[in-house]
Amino acid sequence: MINKICIIGVGLMGGSFAAGLKKSRQTINIVGFGKNEKNLIKAKQLTVIDEYYLDIEQALQGIDLVLIATPVNSIEAVLKMIKPHLTEQMIICDVGSTKANVVKTAKQVFGQMPSKFIPAHPIAGKEQSGIEAADASLFQNKRVIITPEANADTQAVDSVSDLWQSVGAQVEIMDKNKHDDLLAMTSHLPHMLAFSLMDYLMTNNPQACDYAAGGFKDFTRIASSDALMWRDICINNPEQIIKHIQGYQQNLEQLVSLIKNNQAKELEQLFTDAKSARDSWLNN
Amino acid sequence: MINKICIIGVGLMGGSFAAGLKKSRQTINIVGFGKNEKNLIKAKQLTVIDEYYLDIEQALQGIDLVLIATPVNSIEAVLKMIKPHLTEQMIICDVGSTKANVVKTAKQVFGQMPSKFIPAHPIAGKEQSGIEAADASLFQNKRVIITPEANADTQAVDSVSDLWQSVGAQVEIMDKNKHDDLLAMTSHLPHMLAFSLMDYLMTNNPQACDYAAGGFKDFTRIASSDALMWRDICINNPEQIIKHIQGYQQNLEQLVSLIKNNQAKELEQLFTDAKSARDSWLNN
Repeated sequence: MINKICIIGVGLMGGSFAAGLKKSRQTINIVGFGKNEKNLIKAKQLTVIDEYYLDIEQALQGIDLVLIATPVNSIEAVLKMIKPHLTEQMIICDVGSTKANVVKTAKQVFGQMPSKFIPAHPIAGKEQSGIEAADASLFQNKRVIITPEANADTQAVDSVSDLWQSVGAQVEIMDKNKHDDLLAMTSHLPHMLAFSLMDYLMTNNPQACDYAAGGFKDFTRIASSDALMWRDICINNPEQIIKHIQGYQQNLEQLVSLIKNNQAKELEQLFTDAKSARDSWLNN
Repeated sequence: MINKICIIGVGLMGGSFAAGLKKSRQTINIVGFGKNEKNLIKAKQLTVIDEYYLDIEQALQGIDLVLIATPVNSIEAVLKMIKPHLTEQMIICDVGSTKANVVKTAKQVFGQMPSKFIPAHPIAGKEQSGIEAADASLFQNKRVIITPEANADTQAVDSVSDLWQSVGAQVEIMDKNKHDDLLAMTSHLPHMLAFSLMDYLMTNNPQACDYAAGGFKDFTRIASSDALMWRDICINNPEQIIKHIQGYQQNLEQLVSLIKNNQAKELEQLFTDAKSARDSWLNN
């Protein structure tokens, strides 16, 4: 039974998880831990957490589950910090956008993957970050992919699944490498394309944006995402991201070739297929 | 003085122009011409046009200005159809997304560019098409680029500018080739990228979309645009589009290289610059 949770990093993701739990499980006790006391004070004022500590030993006292919701790149430091205070029953979960690197880091820190460490990735977000952007309904009807290792404790898997479901998420179990490949395709790739488009425009004609229409605005929205987070995602999932950028470039080459050869029929087919794929995805 | 206008092709663009004029210039008389009588009946029911004809000679009777609002690829057929009925005072305008090809076609059809043909491109649109999607405020605060040739009649330029301003648009005069280059960058390129992304996902992993988040939805919105229109844009502006896709690919290559070489600092810089460029564009 999960009665007391510690959230390490009470920002958009951690704060939204806490706020969602506060709505659905009023009796749960939520402790915040972080380096920035101002932020923790704000989280307490917003009644997202019940109490907070700046000392990890105090923060982890009597905790059933720790949610690590710090940027992906700090996972190693956080695991090292938790390690001396880890108890038998304590479940660990995270919210990182890449999963193989989390497991690799955990194995390095603990010698082997702790059986109660259940990595997770909620596919939800906003461009805004910080506790001010936290939202109890952020995970409502969103997918959360959990990537337990072969040695994972089934009760821990169930507990983590239950918690995510109680904030409204649809939980799915997946292999960590499959997750990283899939997300490189559906999330990392589009972000790289949007960042690159802004980079291309800025390098070649900074005034060009003045002539852009609404489509450009939507297309580049994700280029306003957090730069540090995306740096970390690139550092932590380089092979899959490169694989999909290069795969994408081949499709772009094919498109160039259709345009070059004036292949009207094939262009129409490609655009029609893209449109119907996107429309049918929207209607799902 | 423009008292009577004929709109050839009463769809989203032509219908929105007519609806906007009806609001700001109640006394203007608007005639619709098209092949699809059902569509023209609907436009009349919606009071977007005052009358319609299926015969071009009747449609052009006493007309001061003809707006060609058919798909880009039909411009040649439309100009040939207008030619026998063109009078001294009649101004021609269009709404095509590419401009050099329109001028080239007009020169072929008329022997030289008619001095009262003032090509225009309103940078506004929706994914929806057809008269049902017409909207009197579609051009409100949107840019309309007009690309008069050297021999253009200045009074015709003024009349066309006035009309676009009266539907709320900001009119800007530009060289046709500069227009096609600029739009290839800010509009055609992002559309090609979005179509290609859907194509890549569909070819490699059609189920992947199920795991896409909100960012993907916005990023690919423009992939739901009209396939025929985009086929025609590719056919009519191939060189500029290919130039910008290839230029973009170089920036994408640089990004791949940064990821491959684990250049965290440079990645962060690139993402930060992209984000601030996009944010400052939004705040303009």
